[in-house]
Amino acid sequence: MSGVFITFEGGDGVGKSTQLQLLAGFVESLGREVIVTREPGGTVLGAEIRNIVLHHRGEIAPRAEALLYAADRAHHVETVVRPALERGAVVIQDRYFDSSIAYQGAGRVLDGEEVREISMWATGSLIPDLTVLLDLDAQQARVRLDAEAKEFDRLESEQSDFHERVQRAYRDLALLDPARWLVLDASQTIDNIAKTIRERVEPMVSDPR
Amino acid sequence: MSGVFITFEGGDGVGKSTQLQLLAGFVESLGREVIVTREPGGTVLGAEIRNIVLHHRGEIAPRAEALLYAADRAHHVETVVRPALERGAVVIQDRYFDSSIAYQGAGRVLDGEEVREISMWATGSLIPDLTVLLDLDAQQARVRLDAEAKEFDRLESEQSDFHERVQRAYRDLALLDPARWLVLDASQTIDNIAKTIRERVEPMVSDPR
Repeated sequence: MSGVFITFEGGDGVGKSTQLQLLAGFVESLGREVIVTREPGGTVLGAEIRNIVLHHRGEIAPRAEALLYAADRAHHVETVVRPALERGAVVIQDRYFDSSIAYQGAGRVLDGEEVREISMWATGSLIPDLTVLLDLDAQQARVRLDAEAKEFDRLESEQSDFHERVQRAYRDLALLDPARWLVLDASQTIDNIAKTIRERVEPMVSDPR
Repeated sequence: MSGVFITFEGGDGVGKSTQLQLLAGFVESLGREVIVTREPGGTVLGAEIRNIVLHHRGEIAPRAEALLYAADRAHHVETVVRPALERGAVVIQDRYFDSSIAYQGAGRVLDGEEVREISMWATGSLIPDLTVLLDLDAQQARVRLDAEAKEFDRLESEQSDFHERVQRAYRDLALLDPARWLVLDASQTIDNIAKTIRERVEPMVSDPR
C-alpha cells in the first residue's frame, strides 16, 4: 500500500481546518496511518519561517516572501511529507504550492509560472494526489472571519480585492488540472462538504484488494 | 555617475572583512557614497533569516537552506543594494550569490546551476561589476580561525574537506567569468592585497571626466 498526498486549498475562513480534521478522522477509521500537517509552519524550522513571514515589521520584498515559503516547503517535504508517504501514510495537508501560486503569483506582482517552478525545485516536483479547493466568495469569507472576531494577521488584513484575485487564481489552477482538483462550494453545510470529500477519497485510501 | 557593485568572496578567515573596510575607506576618500553591507543578514529580515540558518537546532534540508539564503538576497537587493546603486553609490558587499553557488552547489549536494538560477530570480539578475576572491588554502584558513579562538558556528564547524571543495568551486567560478573576478592570494600581506584591490577599483569609481 502506497502513501496518498491530499492537500486543502482556499482563502482564509472557508473551513479548511474543519474539513481537514473530519477527513483525517474518516481515513483513520479505515485503518490508515494519517499525518495532518500544514504550510507554512509544519516543522520547527517552518514555524520560525512562518513567524518571520506573518509578523515581520515592515514590508517583505515579494520575491523574498515567495522564497521563504519555498524554503519552508522544501524542509517540510523532505523531513515530514516524503518520509510519511514512503512508509505508506496518508498525508492531509493544509495549503501547499497552489497557495503560493494563488497568493504570490496571481494575488501579487510575481509571475505564477515562476513561483510554481521554484516550488517544483523546492519539493523535487512532489505533486498531490488530490487537492480539495473550498471555494468561497471573498465577501462571504470575510463575513465568516469577522464573525470569529479574531485578530487578523498581515496577510488577512490585505484588501478584499486581493482575496478576489486569489479566488480567481485558485479556480484557474483547478481548471488547468481537473483530475487533481476537487472544487467544492464552501457555502454548503459542513456535513455535505465532508460527505463529498469522503466519497472522493475513500477509493484512493482503501486497500485495493 | 552610476552605481558600482563590488562583492567579496572567499572562505571564512581569509580576511574579507578587513579588505572590505579598507576598500570602503579608499572609495569614500574619492568622494563617492559607499554602502558596506553583507549577506546573509544585511537587513533586519536578513538578520532573522541568518539567525535561523546559523543557529537552528537540527538539520536544515539543503534546498531549504539554499532558498533561505535566496530569500535574504531578494530582500536585501530590493531594499538596500538596488536603491543605493540607483542613486549612484558604491556598494561593497561581503558575500553574494557566488557564496551560495560555492557553498550550496559545489560544497554540498545541490546542483550549482540550479542554485545560480534561483539567485538570478531572487535578484532580478543583478550581477556585480567586480567580485574579489580572497583565495586561501583551506588549511591555512583554518589555522587563522583557530588563532582567533572564536566559537565556530554551524557552517564553520563542517569538515575541512568541505572547505576544500568550496575553495575549488570559487576558483572554477572565477575561471568562467574572468572579467568580473579579481582573484588574489590571501596569504599575501594585508597592505599588498589592499593595494591590488585599490588599483583595480579606482578607475571603476572615479569620475570619467
